[in-house]
Amino acid sequence: MGETLEQIKRGRYKDAVIGFRNHWYPAMRSRDIVEEEVKPLTILGEDVLFKRIDGQVYAIRNNCAHRGYRFSEKVECYTRNTITCPVHAFTYNFRNGELVTIPSDPESPLIGQTKVHAYPVEEVNDLVFVFIGDVAPSPLAHDVPPRFLEKNLYVVAAVNVDCDCNWRIAADSGFDPNHVFLHKENDFLKELQIPFPIATRLKNSDTFGEIELIEGDGPKGMTDRLSATEPVYEHSFECDGETGRMASMFPPDGAQGQAAQAFGSIEGSLWMPGVLNVDPWPIPGMTHFEWWVPIDETTHRYFIAWGKWIDEQEEQEAFREEVETKWIHLGYENFNRYDVLLNNGMQAFYADPDRTYGHGQILTRNDGYTIAWHRLATKHNRGIQKRYAGK
Amino acid sequence: MGETLEQIKRGRYKDAVIGFRNHWYPAMRSRDIVEEEVKPLTILGEDVLFKRIDGQVYAIRNNCAHRGYRFSEKVECYTRNTITCPVHAFTYNFRNGELVTIPSDPESPLIGQTKVHAYPVEEVNDLVFVFIGDVAPSPLAHDVPPRFLEKNLYVVAAVNVDCDCNWRIAADSGFDPNHVFLHKENDFLKELQIPFPIATRLKNSDTFGEIELIEGDGPKGMTDRLSATEPVYEHSFECDGETGRMASMFPPDGAQGQAAQAFGSIEGSLWMPGVLNVDPWPIPGMTHFEWWVPIDETTHRYFIAWGKWIDEQEEQEAFREEVETKWIHLGYENFNRYDVLLNNGMQAFYADPDRTYGHGQILTRNDGYTIAWHRLATKHNRGIQKRYAGK
Amino acid sequence: MGETLEQIKRGRYKDAVIGFRNHWYPAMRSRDIVEEEVKPLTILGEDVLFKRIDGQVYAIRNNCAHRGYRFSEKVECYTRNTITCPVHAFTYNFRNGELVTIPSDPESPLIGQTKVHAYPVEEVNDLVFVFIGDVAPSPLAHDVPPRFLEKNLYVVAAVNVDCDCNWRIAADSGFDPNHVFLHKENDFLKELQIPFPIATRLKNSDTFGEIELIEGDGPKGMTDRLSATEPVYEHSFECDGETGRMASMFPPDGAQGQAAQAFGSIEGSLWMPGVLNVDPWPIPGMTHFEWWVPIDETTHRYFIAWGKWIDEQEEQEAFREEVETKWIHLGYENFNRYDVLLNNGMQAFYADPDRTYGHGQILTRNDGYTIAWHRLATKHNRGIQKRYAGK
Repeated sequence: MGETLEQIKRGRYKDAVIGFRNHWYPAMRSRDIVEEEVKPLTILGEDVLFKRIDGQVYAIRNNCAHRGYRFSEKVECYTRNTITCPVHAFTYNFRNGELVTIPSDPESPLIGQTKVHAYPVEEVNDLVFVFIGDVAPSPLAHDVPPRFLEKNLYVVAAVNVDCDCNWRIAADSGFDPNHVFLHKENDFLKELQIPFPIATRLKNSDTFGEIELIEGDGPKGMTDRLSATEPVYEHSFECDGETGRMASMFPPDGAQGQAAQAFGSIEGSLWMPGVLNVDPWPIPGMTHFEWWVPIDETTHRYFIAWGKWIDEQEEQEAFREEVETKWIHLGYENFNRYDVLLNNGMQAFYADPDRTYGHGQILTRNDGYTIAWHRLATKHNRGIQKRYAGK
Repeated sequence: MGETLEQIKRGRYKDAVIGFRNHWYPAMRSRDIVEEEVKPLTILGEDVLFKRIDGQVYAIRNNCAHRGYRFSEKVECYTRNTITCPVHAFTYNFRNGELVTIPSDPESPLIGQTKVHAYPVEEVNDLVFVFIGDVAPSPLAHDVPPRFLEKNLYVVAAVNVDCDCNWRIAADSGFDPNHVFLHKENDFLKELQIPFPIATRLKNSDTFGEIELIEGDGPKGMTDRLSATEPVYEHSFECDGETGRMASMFPPDGAQGQAAQAFGSIEGSLWMPGVLNVDPWPIPGMTHFEWWVPIDETTHRYFIAWGKWIDEQEEQEAFREEVETKWIHLGYENFNRYDVLLNNGMQAFYADPDRTYGHGQILTRNDGYTIAWHRLATKHNRGIQKRYAGK
Repeated sequence: MGETLEQIKRGRYKDAVIGFRNHWYPAMRSRDIVEEEVKPLTILGEDVLFKRIDGQVYAIRNNCAHRGYRFSEKVECYTRNTITCPVHAFTYNFRNGELVTIPSDPESPLIGQTKVHAYPVEEVNDLVFVFIGDVAPSPLAHDVPPRFLEKNLYVVAAVNVDCDCNWRIAADSGFDPNHVFLHKENDFLKELQIPFPIATRLKNSDTFGEIELIEGDGPKGMTDRLSATEPVYEHSFECDGETGRMASMFPPDGAQGQAAQAFGSIEGSLWMPGVLNVDPWPIPGMTHFEWWVPIDETTHRYFIAWGKWIDEQEEQEAFREEVETKWIHLGYENFNRYDVLLNNGMQAFYADPDRTYGHGQILTRNDGYTIAWHRLATKHNRGIQKRYAGK
């Protein structure tokens, strides 16, 4: 309540089961809520109600302050700016959560005093962001990758899909370069004929040397240096007299160095509170953003947005068309959807209450990316989200 | 066990998650169990088995005393008075729960000593009541509204429906006059063209002055005094430059005083362990009873019975016909069913373990009815029901 | 881990919710896994993955040691002997669980050191047995009835079915002679016209005198002595002026003694960790085995295998044909399936956390069989299975 950003207590990554409090998260794509639409969503375990009024999106807690009725069960709006609980007619200003009237007690001292929590909302780059927390919100620019707010970047929010695993499973895999193995058969590679590695090898034994931490005043994050690793396009092994072989679909025949250089020039960066930037991706000239937003203990919402540096409206419209007709199909359906599927296959393991996050795993020196992320998140979060911590 | 009504420990309303122990509750309508029918029901979390034998309904616990088999899974009765567990043939007298025979040990000292719990049952006014508790039962007359047992009242049990919320949500709303708002669009009003208010206003600031407590030897309850409040048929408010207006479907044009007087002459009264009487309702000459009987933590059974003071059998049959063809449709389907729907919309809020009943709400001075009920229930209950407290 | 069979701590039967650790259990019938098939199963709460390689069945834990991915979600085998986690390509030897390679770090010190748990497996008599535990496994012969491994016994594994109750409910009923009551109407009896009793009576008051304990070096078990009891084919009782009568479908008219002698010559024996032998059954010359293998807290897997002492391959094939066309139908569908159905009817009672196993029951002197089994199991188990007690 009176708490400020300076006073909040940070928590450990392993305790952030439903995320970190006091951060900005994408709630939906701009297209997901039209004028006057009222839309309920669970975010970080909180029941939030959104409405678009005169083009602007507002969000309040989805429970009447009086007896807890979920507004979204039966929506009653007597003006565009207000929502009325259908049980006892307590009426709130949707733009700030204040109690406006009670027909049975119009002089009640509660009016203008009592409110339902109103969440700060910002709509930027085709996404509706909401600040889940109590304190005065930090700038949105502190909770997104720096590239996201670059002046002439045009962004299309492409994917918004619920996934059946804890958000941290996805966050841990997204930045880790060795999860490339799971993409080895994706049609995306076939379509673009990209010589995509099945693994990356450390060139020296110091894992963390490949990671650069960004801990200044703005967003907190870390970037990998794929150029400092060696991509692996084929691997053979022996076991009990048999030979096994794993290989990229399109090996970089005769131009291994060139392919490695191209792959090495892709930079991944991971930012608080859980957003990845891959650049360039999926092709030179485009940049890729993805968020894993906690819904509850066992599910999260996955967003993908693609950006391109273009100013002309015509080009922008063409790019939006291209995303919708080509990249959602190729880049998500035939590529990142496999991240979702394989992340879900780890949920049963992490859901075991005796194996709280981070235990029971055997991490290797290649997991420096993941370990560095755990440390960064533990150091720079603004508090652990708890069930019903808020108003 | 050996405990008496005088020795029981009362508990708090907020702890009565599955109800108050040692009270009478309606289990079903008389029509719901025919001769020789065996019927299992969960009531206050207990698994109870009913049978009608020679017209009279009996109830025992639905688990064999030996190894806990649920009799209702495979009913075997070798006489009308007995039930036999199909696993090891332990046979009980359905009328008192006593163990009658064990074929593998007919001389067992357990016979005639061991019993399954037999619940006191009384069938009155078209309803089968059961006493959930251990002590010698109090008179049924202490657990129903006084009007219910009036000599020449003829009662038809009309509605028996399971609802998806805790019983207290329904109990709190039922007596509270301001929940009238939720009925504002019901077809019942359209059909009868009743000028029904959307709210009631206190005439003075003393909420509790409108409530009369009845705490004598008989049933414990409280009555409202709607005549002391002012019904509201229309309400306007301003918010951010817009005006909102809520209004009754049929405003009492030109006869506001008369309508208010008619509405004010309706008396609501609420009784332990959770039964409402509204009189007259739904029309002059009829009286309305409703019960909210806990099933488990998140569901309850809702009964409605309507009475009319008529002695002649012919009139009684006509009234039963009228209830079945008219009032179930109008009075329940098009009126009280909306209480059910909206009560369910508060369940998620109250189910949150961090918001035990009564916390997290902001109650107003209009909630005196609800607060008075909480106090009455806390003062006059005969114990808190716990899971498997009984035999 | 380093623990030996001698050092393990025994536990109480009432705590063995998901079974006893460090014992052999049937996992499936031989026919349930064909060459190169990969099959996941939950056994005693553990997630186990089986594969048949060159005819032999192997089993490993179904989670990658790295980040816990369930191998069975997306099976990748680059050689017949190995399984590869599809996320980061950690590759294990299926025959011993050892980590064989990591493409991103082929020189990792983990290779050859780290392993996923490999479960000892033995395939005997048409069943695949697995040892669930950490210690070096005891001989399979110590965990099956002595008759099961008799040299010229030919065994057909007939039934493998999941049941909706805790394994102990089934174990307690299987050996207890008085549960015969539940079979009284089974078509099996009609088909074979067997004079099957509805109960058995103790001839003297010493229940335990009818049970012989076997506690030598080999399997630990107990046998009943039905010959020392008196079978009951009919039983009448009085209650409130009515007479009830229970009777066998085929009473042994005129030859009661002969039928009793035939029934008395059937010997039941119950063995650790939960396997029953009935001999002869279902007809002279055949012997019956059944296992109740814990899956989780509320379900178990039920196996039936029938044996016959025959050496000739032709006879064995004929017997297998007979089991499949006749005995599965008569002996399971029309007999033992009723055990399953009625056992399930006790689950709700035992699932109640306030009635941990063994409380809330009223056991009689006829329950000596069950009590003796509880004592034997408490004395001779090799530890209590706990969730994720393993590696």
